[in-house]
Amino acid sequence: MKYCSHCAEELVFNIPPGDNRERHVCPACNAVHYHNPRIITGCIPIHENRILLCKRAIEPRSGYWTLPAGFLENGETIAEGAARETREEACASVTLKELYGVFDVPHIGQVHMFYRATLNDLNFQPGAESLETRLFREAEIPWDRLAFPVIRIILEHYFENSKTGQFTMKTARVDRSPPRSRSL
Amino acid sequence: MKYCSHCAEELVFNIPPGDNRERHVCPACNAVHYHNPRIITGCIPIHENRILLCKRAIEPRSGYWTLPAGFLENGETIAEGAARETREEACASVTLKELYGVFDVPHIGQVHMFYRATLNDLNFQPGAESLETRLFREAEIPWDRLAFPVIRIILEHYFENSKTGQFTMKTARVDRSPPRSRSL
Repeated sequence: MKYCSHCAEELVFNIPPGDNRERHVCPACNAVHYHNPRIITGCIPIHENRILLCKRAIEPRSGYWTLPAGFLENGETIAEGAARETREEACASVTLKELYGVFDVPHIGQVHMFYRATLNDLNFQPGAESLETRLFREAEIPWDRLAFPVIRIILEHYFENSKTGQFTMKTARVDRSPPRSRSL
Repeated sequence: MKYCSHCAEELVFNIPPGDNRERHVCPACNAVHYHNPRIITGCIPIHENRILLCKRAIEPRSGYWTLPAGFLENGETIAEGAARETREEACASVTLKELYGVFDVPHIGQVHMFYRATLNDLNFQPGAESLETRLFREAEIPWDRLAFPVIRIILEHYFENSKTGQFTMKTARVDRSPPRSRSL
């Protein structure tokens, strides 16, 4: 961020009056440009004892499997965003149940939120951002080919809950992963 | 938003390739400037059977009572943000319990999240954005002087839960309030 989006003046980076952290501030029009965390919203689409995953067609983590999820947009609820992302990425129609996972990912300024959901039918197929969409039983989940740590955490939690039938919301903080070994 | 924050060119408003909604796009450097919902994080600070509220010193709703809450900042977790806002607005130290409320406020592009919390001590006082801080029993809550609809919803839910001792997360969608009568 270099120029003021209101007046095109070059920005400075300092603590505005009454604030306690550095912001991008315009020395001409005094606009303060805030940057805040964004919400990723998605769901676990379930059909009987299987879960719908999408193989990513885009970076980051192209070729790895994930749950349908993406940035919450202005004007929609978290649940509406989760259903929209599921339509866009898997062409799938879901009925959302409860909010089931809330994950802080502070090193990239994101909060990830997932609903439990049931597939309304089996008419799913890859959307523009997916290479493949498929239902997986627990034993079939590609654990070594999951796109993000959050996906592993919520899937492990879901299968653990499934054993007892008691579904409880999962919360966790997810920090930067350690660097991967070259050999992996 | 009028100028590109990367290169200062005048922005256009159209649907970028591969997208499905209008964005602010730079015709010179092709940057797409997204606007996404922001998170308000706060808590219900509890001491025995009383709740700490803050009388707002700033607009909107200056002079009205609210729970300590504010915008989540980059690099912090939702819980860290809730504790920070409680320090800033009420100079109060809290121990956070579970995530207790998640509210969609889509007409202003916000998601509000609240934790249950216990006050660590009674050394609270108004921070820079508060006129007054005070503990309220249920019968003392200034229901007609609450700052925002979300505050009423979470407080009502809390007192309802308190009767049984069973605390369950509250979720709701909060839409624009109907216009107030001039006489109120």
